[in-house]
Amino acid sequence: MKRLSVIKIGGNVIDNPLALEKFLDGLARIERPFILVHGGGALATKLSRRLGVESKMVDGRRITDGEMIKIATMVYAGLINKQLAASLQKRGINAIGLCGADASAIVSRKREDKNIEWGYVGDVIPNGVNASFINGLINISAVPVFCAITSDREGNLLNTNADTVAEEIASAMAEKYPEEYEVKLIYCFEKQGVMMDADNNESLIKEMNKEKFTELKERGIIVGGMLPKLENAFKALSRGVKQVIVKQADNLLNSIQTTITL
Amino acid sequence: MKRLSVIKIGGNVIDNPLALEKFLDGLARIERPFILVHGGGALATKLSRRLGVESKMVDGRRITDGEMIKIATMVYAGLINKQLAASLQKRGINAIGLCGADASAIVSRKREDKNIEWGYVGDVIPNGVNASFINGLINISAVPVFCAITSDREGNLLNTNADTVAEEIASAMAEKYPEEYEVKLIYCFEKQGVMMDADNNESLIKEMNKEKFTELKERGIIVGGMLPKLENAFKALSRGVKQVIVKQADNLLNSIQTTITL
Repeated sequence: MKRLSVIKIGGNVIDNPLALEKFLDGLARIERPFILVHGGGALATKLSRRLGVESKMVDGRRITDGEMIKIATMVYAGLINKQLAASLQKRGINAIGLCGADASAIVSRKREDKNIEWGYVGDVIPNGVNASFINGLINISAVPVFCAITSDREGNLLNTNADTVAEEIASAMAEKYPEEYEVKLIYCFEKQGVMMDADNNESLIKEMNKEKFTELKERGIIVGGMLPKLENAFKALSRGVKQVIVKQADNLLNSIQTTITL
Repeated sequence: MKRLSVIKIGGNVIDNPLALEKFLDGLARIERPFILVHGGGALATKLSRRLGVESKMVDGRRITDGEMIKIATMVYAGLINKQLAASLQKRGINAIGLCGADASAIVSRKREDKNIEWGYVGDVIPNGVNASFINGLINISAVPVFCAITSDREGNLLNTNADTVAEEIASAMAEKYPEEYEVKLIYCFEKQGVMMDADNNESLIKEMNKEKFTELKERGIIVGGMLPKLENAFKALSRGVKQVIVKQADNLLNSIQTTITL
């Protein structure tokens, strides 16, 4: 049984050159195989502003119109994805940068919502991850690097939540290859893990389970972007992923982290 | 012996939505395996203008400074490459969009020229094409779709001539797999082929060899971008590519074309 890590790196780290370099140095030293999934960061918003394209947000999520999906594709699938591939190759990691359209690796469907017109936003469909293609890349010692642009097989590129893409890939690999891989999902971002108090570095919650999550959610301690991240974590665990970890990108090689169990 | 086509599609076709759709429809019907290499078109220049980044040209070639390589990577490796991948997937072709940094598929070196500072422009190094990786993709029935952004293994992304990238890939496949593949290189663009008179559609040169090329070059009939394209063609033939064809993207399924031999 091989251990397979699916590592998601958040946009705040992508935006910080020093933190990103340190993260990539750590990545070059961890056990393989692994799969990297990256978020977008502020670059797409900055670029859209320079181009005079308005960036609409609803509940912290971007509304993606026809102009915005082009910008997201350029920034996420183009610049960031290829800079990561080149930086990893430099470090001797055989990275291959992909989006969900490539080999229909991640098939999604345009989100339908009677309240909001999301535009080119996609949700991964059931069995939407092409696990055997990803396994084929691992078998030739490649390291897949995915951005969160997916496609619907109808020719549309769709913007998808990167935490969810990481969850879907990890779960699909666990479901399709239960005998081959013990899958670990690692969410790396700018904080040490799930915190009792976002402003207090000493307040790391080392262990988290569903019961504790429900309690902390009700008490208003876990809020914002951490809510869907943890919901993704529990979904992955329920689908056969062995371990989910939330940690700082800097701490990839140590065990300062929140470990999540069901 | 399998026939392998390396098809290069020019920027003028990429820029023309109707011509591009027709080309992709044709592509869905041709014999596989094939590899697609695409040029850039006017989009990068347009985007750089919108962003206020100056696009310098010397002898019809773009000087690629630090801002321009980011724009080229966004447009070529991002938007165009992924739109092509999604459009081909829609047509049932298992496309996988790549740049040269991915799996170090095409390794280049920054151009050194005592007369001109080219910036982030790269030339493919000897044995720079990872033919076994490309062969691995073909063996899993994927169709590699390459843009002309390459990398130097030092973390730099470099802008490379797309005609040359197509030649290097075709030649590398012919050299590495002489027993497996009979390689054909097809340059598709907006004209019917090599013309005696660019303004006269009846002036197609159906057959071209090195002797004829030298003569027509001296007479000033073959000029501009056709010169390096034909030099690439002869280089490919000298490296084991069986056939090189120059033709209109519209004519992919018929034999209106210039066939080039040594």
